[in-house]
Parts: sequence; C-alpha cells; structure tokens
Amino acid sequence: MKLYSSPRSPFVRKVVVAIHELGLADQIELVPTVVAMDQPNAGMLAKNPLGKIPVLELYDGTAIYDSAVIIDYLDRKVGCRLIPAAGDARDWVLVNHALANGLMDILVLWRNERDKPSEQQSTGWIANFGRKTEAVLAALEKQTPELEHKPFGLAHIAIAVVLAYLDFRFEALNWREPCPKLAAWHAKAAQRPSMLASQITA
Amino acid sequence: MKLYSSPRSPFVRKVVVAIHELGLADQIELVPTVVAMDQPNAGMLAKNPLGKIPVLELYDGTAIYDSAVIIDYLDRKVGCRLIPAAGDARDWVLVNHALANGLMDILVLWRNERDKPSEQQSTGWIANFGRKTEAVLAALEKQTPELEHKPFGLAHIAIAVVLAYLDFRFEALNWREPCPKLAAWHAKAAQRPSMLASQITA
Repeated sequence: MKLYSSPRSPFVRKVVVAIHELGLADQIELVPTVVAMDQPNAGMLAKNPLGKIPVLELYDGTAIYDSAVIIDYLDRKVGCRLIPAAGDARDWVLVNHALANGLMDILVLWRNERDKPSEQQSTGWIANFGRKTEAVLAALEKQTPELEHKPFGLAHIAIAVVLAYLDFRFEALNWREPCPKLAAWHAKAAQRPSMLASQITA
Repeated sequence: MKLYSSPRSPFVRKVVVAIHELGLADQIELVPTVVAMDQPNAGMLAKNPLGKIPVLELYDGTAIYDSAVIIDYLDRKVGCRLIPAAGDARDWVLVNHALANGLMDILVLWRNERDKPSEQQSTGWIANFGRKTEAVLAALEKQTPELEHKPFGLAHIAIAVVLAYLDFRFEALNWREPCPKLAAWHAKAAQRPSMLASQITA
C-alpha cells in the first residue's frame, strides 16, 4: 500500500505513528507529496478531490482518506488496538481524537493566516485561534491522568502529534509552561518508537 | 440529551438528519447556539474547547463531538444503521463521508474568506477552493449510481446536506449544471422526512 504523505503534516504523522504502533510499517510505502492552500496538486486531486494528504492507496487502487478513516481502516485489519470497538472507551477515544485533530485544524489555519501578507491577515481570526488553542491545552492538561491511565490509542497519538506540531510551528507559544503534567506525559510519549520513527523534518 | 446547534451549520444539519433517520428526534433537544470564526463563545468553549458546534450533551453532562463522532455514538445506540460495522461497505461510507465533510470545510472557509474586507481576501485561496469544489462535484456525479444503489447512510446524509448548503450559500455556482445525475438523486433525497425536518433557515 502507498501513503501519500509529507514529513511536516501533523495529519500525516498521526497515520505514520499509527502504522508503527500497529506493526504495519513494512507493508506501506511513504510517497512524498506536496499540497498547499493556494496551489492545487492535480495528481492528488485525482486520488482525493479535496486535494489533501494523507491518502492511503490500497493494492487495488482504492483511495482511503482522511487520516481518521485511514487509521480506522488499518486498525480494523489488525484487530481494533487503537480504537475500541464500543462503549465509553470508544467515546473517550473518539472525542479526544476530535479535540486534538480540531487543534491541528486550528493551527494549520492559524499558520496559513499569519503567513499571509500582513494587510491580508485577520486579527480577529488570529485572536480567536489563540483563545481556542489555550482552551484545548487547558482541557488536555486537566485530563493528563486519563492519558496516563488508558491504553495508548488514537487519542494519545493525535495529542502527542499535535503537541509536537506546536513545538515545530508555534514554539513561541511555550505550551509547556501552563501545562506541566501534559508536558511530562508528552516527554514520555515522544520516546515511543512510533514517535521517534516519524519525527518532523523541516 | 441536548444538541447545541444552529439551523445554518451543515455540520449540525448532518447530525439532525441522522437523528431523524435513527428515530431519535424525541430524545434530543436542539439548543440554538451561535459561534463564529472571530468571536469565541465562552459557553461553548467550556463544553468543547474547539468552540464549535454541533456538541451533543449526554444526560450525565458528557460532551460528544465532532459531528461524525456524535453520529457514530447515536448510530451504535440504535444498531449501526448509518455506518456499517465492517468491511468494504464501511470503507465506502467513511471515505464518502470524508469527501462531503471535507467539502463542507472548504465551503465554510471559502465563505469566511469571501466575507472578509476585499483587501484581506486571498485570491489564491479562493481559486483553490473553487477548483477543489469542482473536483469533489465531478467525483460525486461519477458515483451517483452507487448513491442510488447503497442503503441511505452517513455518506448519503453528508452529500445531501452539502449539496443543500451549496444552494444556500453558493447559489451562483449552479452546481446542478455539470452534475445532472447528482441533481436528480438530490431532488429525491431532499424529499426524505429527515431532510424536510431539518431545512436550513436563514
């Protein structure tokens, strides 16, 4: 199988970490792919009309996306190790994945906005991105005990990846300062083989 | 249960259609809620730190989000009627939901961008939103036979809702012109009681 990917996308990294956690790294080839908000990639539009990565291409050519659907697909192949099949455990994982994934969305939009020529930037949007990011970090800090207690799965992956993305693109936010427990959890999570194997490269 | 909602959000409407399809309308109270890209809603940030709707609040106060997670939750309660539990059928539904949901994301961003003061608008982004929208519509037109053939589920809901959203916010695109088969399918889907019960109001 092929994974259309970029070493800088947090959505891609989430999938790559999942691939390593599931022991599938030798079955999936990473295909470097460039996409941007203002530059369509015609090759990717043919596979995923949204023009986004990651896309998983199966042996028969079927394209699977987005990142959550790819992980759902791979996890079911291996036996629901990252996403519990039912119950409160499933709800917790899916809601916390949505929280971390939503923060990725915010950060990518924020970065796109701040990289525009200054006269095109919306200060209202940027202020709102900042307040939402603070709110998400406060919520994650509060539930660090849950993160430590529950089996490492889809939510853990998304949270570990989005925190690393904050380090990569939003270093000045200094997220560890208001979040000491989360920072301690992340320091351990960042040492997992799956996280080490998928480090962001500039 | 309470659903924090707005009659104009396509993400909310997706959930409301699902609630009707699952026969759960009498168990869920819709709570009108306003959120915007540049105006945080403090009450919503407390329930969902991303500050987005829809959010489903369970009887015990647990907040479930985003829209796909809410539908996953409700569908499992009732017995996997909208999202097949496994196999190719599940992959098809989840990928096509991701496609329609991704188009909602694009359209909401596009609308936010075009509603900015003209000197703040990025013409590159707007052009790219247009190309992606065309690509998604072409892909949907191509698979209208699948839509007609498969049981009405999560993908159908998302596609019916995003097409109605195009009518609501992007009438000038005239999406039916290049998509006659999709338009015929949509005309029928729009007559389902779930779609009629959740019509967009300005």
